[in-house]
Amino acid sequence: MKDLTNIFKSYQNMEGAEVTFIARVRSNRQGKVVSFMVLNDGTTFKDVQVVYKSDIIGFNDAQEARVSSIVEVVGKIINTPGKPQPFEIVASKIILLDQAIEEYPLQKKEHSPEFLREIAHLRARTKTLSAVFKIRSTLAFAIHKFFNEQGFVYVNTPIITSNDAEGAGEEFVVTTLEDTNYEEDFFGKKANLTVSGQLHAEALAQAFKKVYTFGPTFRAEESYTSKHAAEFWMIEPEVAFNSLTDNILLIEKMLKSIVGYVLEKCFDELQFLDNNLEKGLIEKIQGITSSNFKTLTYSEAIEILKKAVEQGVAFEQKNIHFGLDLGTEHERYICEVVNKCPTFVTNYPKDIKAFYMKQNDDNKTVAAVDLLVPGIGELIGGSERESDYDKLVKRCEEIKIPVDKLEWYLNLRQYGYYKSAGFGLGFERLVMYITGITNIRDVISYPRTPKNLLF
Amino acid sequence: MKDLTNIFKSYQNMEGAEVTFIARVRSNRQGKVVSFMVLNDGTTFKDVQVVYKSDIIGFNDAQEARVSSIVEVVGKIINTPGKPQPFEIVASKIILLDQAIEEYPLQKKEHSPEFLREIAHLRARTKTLSAVFKIRSTLAFAIHKFFNEQGFVYVNTPIITSNDAEGAGEEFVVTTLEDTNYEEDFFGKKANLTVSGQLHAEALAQAFKKVYTFGPTFRAEESYTSKHAAEFWMIEPEVAFNSLTDNILLIEKMLKSIVGYVLEKCFDELQFLDNNLEKGLIEKIQGITSSNFKTLTYSEAIEILKKAVEQGVAFEQKNIHFGLDLGTEHERYICEVVNKCPTFVTNYPKDIKAFYMKQNDDNKTVAAVDLLVPGIGELIGGSERESDYDKLVKRCEEIKIPVDKLEWYLNLRQYGYYKSAGFGLGFERLVMYITGITNIRDVISYPRTPKNLLF
Repeated sequence: MKDLTNIFKSYQNMEGAEVTFIARVRSNRQGKVVSFMVLNDGTTFKDVQVVYKSDIIGFNDAQEARVSSIVEVVGKIINTPGKPQPFEIVASKIILLDQAIEEYPLQKKEHSPEFLREIAHLRARTKTLSAVFKIRSTLAFAIHKFFNEQGFVYVNTPIITSNDAEGAGEEFVVTTLEDTNYEEDFFGKKANLTVSGQLHAEALAQAFKKVYTFGPTFRAEESYTSKHAAEFWMIEPEVAFNSLTDNILLIEKMLKSIVGYVLEKCFDELQFLDNNLEKGLIEKIQGITSSNFKTLTYSEAIEILKKAVEQGVAFEQKNIHFGLDLGTEHERYICEVVNKCPTFVTNYPKDIKAFYMKQNDDNKTVAAVDLLVPGIGELIGGSERESDYDKLVKRCEEIKIPVDKLEWYLNLRQYGYYKSAGFGLGFERLVMYITGITNIRDVISYPRTPKNLLF
Repeated sequence: MKDLTNIFKSYQNMEGAEVTFIARVRSNRQGKVVSFMVLNDGTTFKDVQVVYKSDIIGFNDAQEARVSSIVEVVGKIINTPGKPQPFEIVASKIILLDQAIEEYPLQKKEHSPEFLREIAHLRARTKTLSAVFKIRSTLAFAIHKFFNEQGFVYVNTPIITSNDAEGAGEEFVVTTLEDTNYEEDFFGKKANLTVSGQLHAEALAQAFKKVYTFGPTFRAEESYTSKHAAEFWMIEPEVAFNSLTDNILLIEKMLKSIVGYVLEKCFDELQFLDNNLEKGLIEKIQGITSSNFKTLTYSEAIEILKKAVEQGVAFEQKNIHFGLDLGTEHERYICEVVNKCPTFVTNYPKDIKAFYMKQNDDNKTVAAVDLLVPGIGELIGGSERESDYDKLVKRCEEIKIPVDKLEWYLNLRQYGYYKSAGFGLGFERLVMYITGITNIRDVISYPRTPKNLLF
């Protein structure tokens, strides 16, 4: 029994060879002389065409095989250089192993993304979603492979946490109670779903120098946008003894490595998405691997944007000033129009960034970095962490973060800390960027958004 | 600036070479003529010894460097073939980059596992926990690598789910409310943390043939044992068109592959654990890679156990009969005493197994398989899935699983299903087995158990 992917790898040397495989019917049409089944077993993006005549074993059942049924085929490989498909299988036997019902919802026609989300348990069988989830899987492996090769330790930071004080977003409560008497609850206190593994990872980076998390994170925000999901995966590397510059070099190296890997392993899928979803997709992501990323400071970015407004660029937010939280329109202008390549922006005002970022000597900015990429804006955000215990405590107090709940984290600075830097990459945002998918609900197998919890 | 791991890889060819590195102080003791620092930067399991005299740059600060402080060292590599360590660094300069406070909790002495759990943010700096978490990371990569090489698609099944009907265990509720009016809740219905990704993965296996999940799962069980945690990670592969025999072959192949990888990559860590924690650990896990696993049916296992009781084996549970849910003592007897190798037990009584397992023709057993390993008992559980829609619905009704909530899952059998088989591997149980750690709290960086939610 062969996987179709193996036949696709070696058909050129298998002319006339007999093969046996099991696959799902994508279409089945009867001609006057010969009939055609298009099949796929899920191991390859490409479909295989099976040609069969009325004299084969199992012809009667084969004729009746509906879309999505399972068949076992015995047949010969015939190379077909002139035709759209590189080879066909000329069947001698087709066994209908499992007949699908007539009401199978994915008949051969175009379906809207909205309809497909209602049948999330089936939609990975479509060409588009199949390409997306295969690329998602390949990206995940590329990420593990990169960090493994660089000597990082993969750490599983906790999903359930009592840190509700980080201010990174609204949190879900995890409970076994029907009220809020959390002292009686499973953990004896209020428990939440994590919004980030960074603080926990920082502690582990002090042990292993280089660590990364790759796990689910959660936000209980009622955002009905195409960019927000309540459950999504994050990659959060953290490196002790790293400066902001080291951090920037790591981001660029990582991104080039994983994009290069996906270009190599998923070219068929990317080609399909380039043809059907986003023209120029492959060129866009090849740009990631071939361009030298540029770096400018937030203050320089503000000057550029001020000039742009003077020259008549019509931003929705035209009031450009130090302290402005850059919008996607500003981010895209900088990396698409000005730099024409992925761009690091550094040293943001401390008031628009998180409490743990290292305060620069100017007392106004922090050693933060965002990576802006063409077509999307911010893809990655990171920073060097504040290493000075007193400064960090003072900052927490300034912005009303309860110091007692974060004592363990703050104390890391008293036990020999030096430097540490890291970043966060939203996995779904990366998958969207690489696939051209514009709605986050279509890069997650079973997406979770407000008022939506199917399956 | 070098990572210590690189110096350890090439010190033999670097005699006399000057190197610069940053590391954490593990100990620092002054002699009359020379002083010694033992350092580690987290990139290697081995510590490096630095020798320094009073004439070096930074001597005064270096003398004062406390345990856990961060130092930058410039020095020459001197090979020391006769000594316990293979080389030393003779320092010319030591900069005390960050001095630890005196009250650093991990001074150089033995600490109890219980004490270390109270400082989970620091304990990965100890030799034992460092070895365990490094092996955990390496096992995780080995798992991804194996399934990637076998053509599996990695799928992220949902963490938040509305399936509260699987009967796999007690579930946590995920909510933004302070009451139980779940229609008003974030998702508009009651939401839980997942207990297993299997049902969702089964649907995706119908698209990609070979898929696996590797993510966190949850049980709200008040078990105060050394084997149970409320949050743990599971690996759940699922293969469409696979039989129970295919499933068994996959389990054996996977386990041999990942154990072989860890033996190759983490030998220092395993050696340390073999010396300090479980004598014979390496031999035990080498047994996994070298032995041919055996297979017997549940009925055969029962016969063996009955005979054992007759021959005077003192099981706690002596009432051996068809229908008995085998205890760890029985499982260990079969693989340790009888077979002396990892052992598959197949075809369990349907009443002690899950509703989705394929019912055998005897109408008594299901096509289930457990893998029993010496020293631990059950490590993996799996099955072929019931492919017959009517049988599956009937089984749900028999054991009071509400069919309407699982409609999407049951319906997969109507859309061309044929066969599917898979298994579940509790990641922490695997890490415990490979490291010799006997308490699950010590293989999870920040463990979650009843009434325990630190950090």
